[in-house]
Amino acid sequence: MASIFTRIINREIPGYIVAENEDAIAFLDINPLNEGHTLVVPKKEVDKLFDLDEDTYLKLQAFTHKVAQAIEKTIPCLRVGVAVIGLEVPHAHIHLIPLHGMHDIDFGRPKLKLSQEEFEIIAQKISSNMA
Amino acid sequence: MASIFTRIINREIPGYIVAENEDAIAFLDINPLNEGHTLVVPKKEVDKLFDLDEDTYLKLQAFTHKVAQAIEKTIPCLRVGVAVIGLEVPHAHIHLIPLHGMHDIDFGRPKLKLSQEEFEIIAQKISSNMA
Repeated sequence: MASIFTRIINREIPGYIVAENEDAIAFLDINPLNEGHTLVVPKKEVDKLFDLDEDTYLKLQAFTHKVAQAIEKTIPCLRVGVAVIGLEVPHAHIHLIPLHGMHDIDFGRPKLKLSQEEFEIIAQKISSNMA
Repeated sequence: MASIFTRIINREIPGYIVAENEDAIAFLDINPLNEGHTLVVPKKEVDKLFDLDEDTYLKLQAFTHKVAQAIEKTIPCLRVGVAVIGLEVPHAHIHLIPLHGMHDIDFGRPKLKLSQEEFEIIAQKISSNMA
C-alpha cells in the first residue's frame, strides 16, 4: 500500500505543499514542533534515508538545501535544524525545524495546534521565498 | 579563534576519527547518545549548515552518506538517524546517531560513558567499514 506521503505526492490526500520538483516534495508537518516545521520527502518510496543511492540522495539534499534557506528567510528563528528518525512512517523524510532553543528537537514535547488557514499562510510564505 | 572542531581537524586536540577527505571529517561524539554516535563536520568553518554554498553542502552530504552507511554496517541498530542543531559549537556539524527507538534523538537525556579504549575500538570498526 502507498505510504501516507506517496498519497500526498499523488494528491490523493491534501497537504500544505511548500515546494516540489521531479524527485522530491516538501510540505508542512501537520504536527509541528515549531511554526514552519517542514518535511522533505523523496518521491521514490524508500524506508531508510541512507538506503537511497548516492545520486538520488544528493538530489534530495540539493532540494533540502533550497527549502531550508526558504524557511530561514520566512520564519524568524535562530536557524533551521534537521532531524531524521523515520520510525513512524516507512518512507524516508527529513524534518526541517526552525529552532528557537537547544531543546526544540524533542519529539516528545507537545506539538503546536494551528488552523488550516494558518498552515496555508505559512506554506504559501515559504513557497514564495524559494529561490 | 579556531573552533574545537577545527582544532580536531588540525590535530591540535585528539579525536576518535572515523573518516576524512579533502573537505570533511567524521569523528565520534565524546558525549554520545548511543554507541556509534558520530559527528560529520565540513573543514570550512561555517556556523550554520545551510549557509554552506550548494556545492560544499553536497560534497559534505556525499561524505555523510558514506559515513552513515558505514555506521549502519558496524553498529546493530534500527537505522541511523540524523540531527542538526548546532547551537553549542559555532561550526556546522551533522549528528549521525544509531537509533534503537523513537526517542533516541533527545539531547536532554543522559549521555553514554565510554572508555578511551571503547571509543577507539568503535572508531576503528566504523572506519574499516567505509566503502
